[in-house]
Amino acid sequence: MPYELYYWPEIQGRGELVRLALEEAGADYVDVARLPDGEGGGVSALMAFFDRTDIARPPFAAPFLKDGVVVIGQTAAILLHLGDRLGLAPPEPTGRLWVHQILLTVLDLVGEVHDTHHPLGGHLYYEDQKAEALRRAEDFRTQRIGKFIRWFETILERSEPAGPYLLGEAVTYADLALFQVVEGLAYAYPLSFSAALAEAPRVAALRRATAERARIKAYLASERRIPFNEQGIFRHYPELDSA
Amino acid sequence: MPYELYYWPEIQGRGELVRLALEEAGADYVDVARLPDGEGGGVSALMAFFDRTDIARPPFAAPFLKDGVVVIGQTAAILLHLGDRLGLAPPEPTGRLWVHQILLTVLDLVGEVHDTHHPLGGHLYYEDQKAEALRRAEDFRTQRIGKFIRWFETILERSEPAGPYLLGEAVTYADLALFQVVEGLAYAYPLSFSAALAEAPRVAALRRATAERARIKAYLASERRIPFNEQGIFRHYPELDSA
Repeated sequence: MPYELYYWPEIQGRGELVRLALEEAGADYVDVARLPDGEGGGVSALMAFFDRTDIARPPFAAPFLKDGVVVIGQTAAILLHLGDRLGLAPPEPTGRLWVHQILLTVLDLVGEVHDTHHPLGGHLYYEDQKAEALRRAEDFRTQRIGKFIRWFETILERSEPAGPYLLGEAVTYADLALFQVVEGLAYAYPLSFSAALAEAPRVAALRRATAERARIKAYLASERRIPFNEQGIFRHYPELDSA
Repeated sequence: MPYELYYWPEIQGRGELVRLALEEAGADYVDVARLPDGEGGGVSALMAFFDRTDIARPPFAAPFLKDGVVVIGQTAAILLHLGDRLGLAPPEPTGRLWVHQILLTVLDLVGEVHDTHHPLGGHLYYEDQKAEALRRAEDFRTQRIGKFIRWFETILERSEPAGPYLLGEAVTYADLALFQVVEGLAYAYPLSFSAALAEAPRVAALRRATAERARIKAYLASERRIPFNEQGIFRHYPELDSA
């Protein structure tokens, strides 16, 4: 039975971390809300799920994954589950936990990126909180991007065996997530991020190595890969960026 | 060897979710930064850790836990680790993942609480972003508190076996985290939260049951429990609350 991923069909968002894991593993999966409405897809399929009263353990929000009868919400929990099943995390407990810790830190960064354009919350349009976004983005550019990227560079530098991935030769879901956030920052904050990335050669090498993996390369070139856009988490608003 | 918890000594914060787990289990632990400086404690001990270059897998931020030679950052990863070791999560994989999923959702709520008083970021004082905090807090009160609390109530309602805890009779780290966020919201948003809690009797019952557990009760009455204050995540700013 294929995995069923439920996520917003128009954006990469947090769901992209799950898509990348499924794609890298060549897993059989359905991206439910990207199917036509007539085939049980669309946003309506996603929303209808939240109205169901027969799910003992309902998710709080998207993304969530159906694996047979098990429904799993929270990106980090989905990847913990898939990491074991798809061979994208080491079986040894300490390494498995380390991969999870890195993923959680990537997710913190993703959350901060979101907050740069929505500092007052998701109930207002960007245009209605633009002045606040300018202030928040300045903090993000000057204080946060560098701090995160330096940490990723440090853990790659200290890793044994050395790269290109976080645990050496074997790719994990944390590598895919780091690749995604690097792609997203390069799209959303090209000016400020290029400076940070220039000082993180190992992060840049991980990005290149991931993009060249056969299944990831095919995925990125396919129509399954939704382009970055200004409805997602990584939005390119030139007024928020600065060299 | 005792567990060593590293977290800011003046606040409950995210570290409190770890403290509660250690306390409930009666674990042998040291809250390092709460020791006097002369005994290797204080904020300086915490900060010095981040400067160490001999840690192969350094944490990005506090809290982090030392368990022998293993260092674990990220609250959720720490609790995943401790849940197994302290008997605060079921050994069966689906239940273990469910507990983790709930914990991650509690942490999302904790993050949103923090953002109500710091919508523009941690680099500015509350006083310098008060106008923005008023707008963010309004969204939080009217759109978010109820949504989270209703979800917790729903999963308690659908749980088999039924309460008082999320998995029935056995307490997990997710119960302790939910207890903590309920205590925090009752402190920070007494007016708006009391309305939400009045419609969530199972959440209220879980809170009461947790507070009555022998070790939790002793901990809450001890000096080890740092009082809520306006340096932490749960801050009582009356201007942000509303009935």
